[in-house]
Amino acid sequence: MQNLLNEVVEEVVKRVKREAFIEVEASGRHVHLSEKEVESLFGKGYTLTKLRDLSQPGQYACKERVTISGPKGSIKNVIVLGPCRKETQVEVSLTDSSSLGLKAPIKQSGDLNETLGIKISTEHGEVILDKGLMIAKRHIHITPQDATKFDVCDNEIVQVKVFGCRPLIFDDVVVRVNENFKTNMHIDYDEANACGYTKESIAKIIKK
Amino acid sequence: MQNLLNEVVEEVVKRVKREAFIEVEASGRHVHLSEKEVESLFGKGYTLTKLRDLSQPGQYACKERVTISGPKGSIKNVIVLGPCRKETQVEVSLTDSSSLGLKAPIKQSGDLNETLGIKISTEHGEVILDKGLMIAKRHIHITPQDATKFDVCDNEIVQVKVFGCRPLIFDDVVVRVNENFKTNMHIDYDEANACGYTKESIAKIIKK
Repeated sequence: MQNLLNEVVEEVVKRVKREAFIEVEASGRHVHLSEKEVESLFGKGYTLTKLRDLSQPGQYACKERVTISGPKGSIKNVIVLGPCRKETQVEVSLTDSSSLGLKAPIKQSGDLNETLGIKISTEHGEVILDKGLMIAKRHIHITPQDATKFDVCDNEIVQVKVFGCRPLIFDDVVVRVNENFKTNMHIDYDEANACGYTKESIAKIIKK
Repeated sequence: MQNLLNEVVEEVVKRVKREAFIEVEASGRHVHLSEKEVESLFGKGYTLTKLRDLSQPGQYACKERVTISGPKGSIKNVIVLGPCRKETQVEVSLTDSSSLGLKAPIKQSGDLNETLGIKISTEHGEVILDKGLMIAKRHIHITPQDATKFDVCDNEIVQVKVFGCRPLIFDDVVVRVNENFKTNMHIDYDEANACGYTKESIAKIIKK
């Protein structure tokens, strides 16, 4: 009886959360590679090896790892995400960018304007890019159904309150609506640490 | 004439800022040592050497550096702040705490309850503490005059909006009023990176 009660309570809490809040995910540093760069770094005809699916449908973590290098230092063991993209893009935190000795701009994923050059290497090869390094701008992926529910539209700027041991309200959060998305907010590890992120963290959209 | 105009404009802007906003300072990892620990780490009768004053009156950075170590790693070259305190206290960011392999609690400076044990060492000696490691809770130092101006009181919890390239509103910010303080907000480097902190960053207190 007690077990049943717990299960019911848990399910109700889960559904209420889903109605009023969105999930938060912290993204670690990662690299999206073009097919050309995959061949330069891993060999001719090489294809990426899927390790596990990510929350966004069609996106996956690969077993391949690379080293990224700037004028002040290198970061080893950076994960490659698949599938391949048209252009190679390296996403790091501001902490990482400082340790590389670079002042990477804060950009929306996919917008490589004004991003910085960076060296990517493996034991098989290296590429020196003239652009691609960025700090990803925090954002919300949202389905059209959830966009309607939360009354937001594509490219709208909202505030998002993250609850937890270090609560804060992220300002200037861009909303991206797409029917292929799963609804959640993406922040980097600087932001995750600043808000005391855990896997249970939830967030509330605040209309400006 | 143009120079005079610029100077006047700059001064007016500075004064307006001072009226409506507070300054923000990012605190790096640091150690406050008791006299006993100073002797254990640097030798009998040793006294700390002041390098430069900090913004809070009476507080200073010392030339002494220590290494702090946890189960997963060490951080070298951690600055010692003076003067000595009754109890040794080690303040790190959540990023640092993870790299040490420890889950340090977020605490108000001076409150060592539930803080973690940590090893501190130099080339002259080492101490193994059973408490003292914390992540400092973000806070505002404020003079009684400014507290009146901003309508806040000691231990009040407020929100603080930080302006800049990555604007956000820190929630749950504790106000500490003391006539010996200089008015400014203290955050750590995770929080600094999350809000795109620069030395020009300013913040506005929002009453809850």
